Amino acid sequence: MSERLVVIGGDAAGMSAASQARRLKSPGELEIVAFERGHFSSYSACGIPYWVGGDVGSRDELIARSPEEHRARAIDLRTRTEVTEIDVERQRVRSRDLESGTEEWTGFDKLVIATGARPLRPPVPGIDAPGVHGVQNLDDGQALIDALSRGEGSGAEGRRAVVIGAGYIGVEMAEALLNRGYGVTVLNRSEQPMATLDPDMGRLVHAAMDGLGIRTVNSAAVTEVLTGPGGRVRAVATDEEEYPADVVVLGTGVRPETALAEEAGLPLGAHGGLLTDLAMRVRGHGNVWAGGDCVEVLDLVSGRMRHVALGTHANKQGQVIGSNVGGDYATFPGVVGTAVSKVCDLEIARTGLREKEAREAGLRFVTVTVESTSRAGYYPGAAPMTVKMLAERRTGRLLGTQIVGREGAAKRVDVAAVALTARMTVEEMTALDLGYAPPFSPVWDPVLVAARKATAAVRAAG
Amino acid sequence: MSERLVVIGGDAAGMSAASQARRLKSPGELEIVAFERGHFSSYSACGIPYWVGGDVGSRDELIARSPEEHRARAIDLRTRTEVTEIDVERQRVRSRDLESGTEEWTGFDKLVIATGARPLRPPVPGIDAPGVHGVQNLDDGQALIDALSRGEGSGAEGRRAVVIGAGYIGVEMAEALLNRGYGVTVLNRSEQPMATLDPDMGRLVHAAMDGLGIRTVNSAAVTEVLTGPGGRVRAVATDEEEYPADVVVLGTGVRPETALAEEAGLPLGAHGGLLTDLAMRVRGHGNVWAGGDCVEVLDLVSGRMRHVALGTHANKQGQVIGSNVGGDYATFPGVVGTAVSKVCDLEIARTGLREKEAREAGLRFVTVTVESTSRAGYYPGAAPMTVKMLAERRTGRLLGTQIVGREGAAKRVDVAAVALTARMTVEEMTALDLGYAPPFSPVWDPVLVAARKATAAVRAAG
Repeated sequence: MSERLVVIGGDAAGMSAASQARRLKSPGELEIVAFERGHFSSYSACGIPYWVGGDVGSRDELIARSPEEHRARAIDLRTRTEVTEIDVERQRVRSRDLESGTEEWTGFDKLVIATGARPLRPPVPGIDAPGVHGVQNLDDGQALIDALSRGEGSGAEGRRAVVIGAGYIGVEMAEALLNRGYGVTVLNRSEQPMATLDPDMGRLVHAAMDGLGIRTVNSAAVTEVLTGPGGRVRAVATDEEEYPADVVVLGTGVRPETALAEEAGLPLGAHGGLLTDLAMRVRGHGNVWAGGDCVEVLDLVSGRMRHVALGTHANKQGQVIGSNVGGDYATFPGVVGTAVSKVCDLEIARTGLREKEAREAGLRFVTVTVESTSRAGYYPGAAPMTVKMLAERRTGRLLGTQIVGREGAAKRVDVAAVALTARMTVEEMTALDLGYAPPFSPVWDPVLVAARKATAAVRAAG
Repeated sequence: MSERLVVIGGDAAGMSAASQARRLKSPGELEIVAFERGHFSSYSACGIPYWVGGDVGSRDELIARSPEEHRARAIDLRTRTEVTEIDVERQRVRSRDLESGTEEWTGFDKLVIATGARPLRPPVPGIDAPGVHGVQNLDDGQALIDALSRGEGSGAEGRRAVVIGAGYIGVEMAEALLNRGYGVTVLNRSEQPMATLDPDMGRLVHAAMDGLGIRTVNSAAVTEVLTGPGGRVRAVATDEEEYPADVVVLGTGVRPETALAEEAGLPLGAHGGLLTDLAMRVRGHGNVWAGGDCVEVLDLVSGRMRHVALGTHANKQGQVIGSNVGGDYATFPGVVGTAVSKVCDLEIARTGLREKEAREAGLRFVTVTVESTSRAGYYPGAAPMTVKMLAERRTGRLLGTQIVGREGAAKRVDVAAVALTARMTVEEMTALDLGYAPPFSPVWDPVLVAARKATAAVRAAG
């Protein structure tokens, strides 16, 4: 007897789940229907800044698998079709065809919720004006590229862009706009850019952005988006100043898109994301799974739930869901909070907890910061790198690592990510057998230098 | 009452030990005398190929700390002074001043043996002829550079170099000689270059070296070094062919330099290296330590002792010895067999066991090989990468990883090195929270792709 799997959301988590379930179950065993309200499927939202900036030539390069390709694998993917209600009890979803307006109910035996996240828009006047752009999906990206290509509103002083927010998306968009020839100002609510880093490490990012010609204004509270002729954006106002803008990009973070799930009575956590078990099954519901940007995940370091919108987690969670839906077994044990990014040639990475998070988790810790290089100091291209490490007092357990540097800095954080997963102490880390040759590392890898110093700090703190 | 520490060997392990001991003990507490038969101290032997090739401008850049700098820190470093005998029972060493020929005995309370390794020279006629160069120490490097600068023996067809051996040193020297404008032939005893990789991965290296214009001859048994006018090298003969050579470089591996230790009755292992406990104390001897290229180390994956000549281990072991000698406490738990190298833009890495080693250790395993890229496929500069992974049958424990690729390939092996140390299974690895952003990785990092495939292979093998 054939079962039907319904998937809500046609991007990373949803379509990974559908594809993996399809690998395990034939169309005769499992019918798969997927709903996506946009035009596209399985695309890399993380790639949008590089498409906007011109590093990636076309939208289609960001699409890993088109709707047609999914359909060719017996996944009934319905694009431009929005799910408007989940009826958990009667095991059905209501959907609306966004072209025709037609609504219908579709029954399911198993349901996957992969509704993603929605960008936070500061609740200020003018935020919805033409010229203010989100970069959440491919349609957003296309709209921004079109606006940039038209060169709308450019004044005599050259084209000016304001980015609101200085997190990963904000700094990546700053680079993209710089690459497009814009003068870029980043308005940042926090004390330093990259609030996912400690302020001392964020300061390094700030200085580097300055060096690249990106102006960053910290502690900036946006009060209004000012419009000019035709209602188009002309400036962004904070409580202190006005910043002229031909285009405004929002990099203000996201929230889980869980309105449907909430209405259906499914369990949400403190960050607004769906709560699941380790198999990605929605808690208390045997036949409903959820994954991707709409769920909360366990932070393995702090032991708390958090919301992390990142394509790599969405893909893994989708894979896990698809395995379980397809009758196999897999789990997503949680995250350690790894994130990497770059602004031009500046590389930024973190994993584990930063100071504030460690304190909130009730942890006592020491911190150390070291300067090192990406290669042996005498090898051409050796670039400076700052590594900050947090270790628990007494136990010496690694709690977090932040790295700011140039080429070769960001992916070094992976060593710390694996060490966090394995709950290693910083002293254990000092003996790690990491790859060494002069073109790739100093004889003491920067992460090991930090671990050594952290070991001494743990001992000194008693 | 002051004690005396005697150190034999003035490079990485010996001087790291001396320096760390000095940090912990004042000259009033601990006198430190170090003997080095060469002119230099604390230099990077691993950097010699890059100096020869011209990437590193001068010899002095390879010297981390000169004899004068050590002496300024109250370490009585005696260069050009060779230790000729260790008298363990009477706690003294005999040394000879290589300039004056004077011999003397120096007593010790504690002894550190850091005599390094010596290059293997194939026992064939002509191997000691002028024009045949080792690259073990700075004097060797200088002699080779001088020979290359004189352009000795260049024939009408341009300058030709033969490298004997295709391990790390061999391939690095091939690059260096290519950079110096030589036509390079590598004579390789094994089936494929880089015998520290499995043959299938070595084949990728072979193909890439071909592409770079480096000729590699596999299964080549060198029978004679042929000399011409003035007794200088003119060709290298194998059992099949003669290879004209203006210069010959030996990259045939090394053996622990333990003649002194053996004569002193200290315990040696099957590979000829000194055997120590985890604190790097020579087994059975309370006041004798050893570290660096002259010791054997525990392979944490196979459980066997092995000999690994690598500056990074020497530095760590020296640090551990210095801590223990200085009254603190540290251990060197062992290695997982990580090694990285490059030939021009080709990056080569391994960690853990290759197939042959796993079999010798009595392990049953599955292997998988995947092709991936260093960055998101759509991001500029995404370079192909091949990852091979070995996992134990039944348990799924990671046993080894080999990577061959371009930019961003080599240091990815660190993730596997940490996972090996933590004895992770490949299935546990699939959930690792590695850094993801399009400029740094595909959404599934190549190492995770391999771990996923290995997980399936473990399951299929039963």
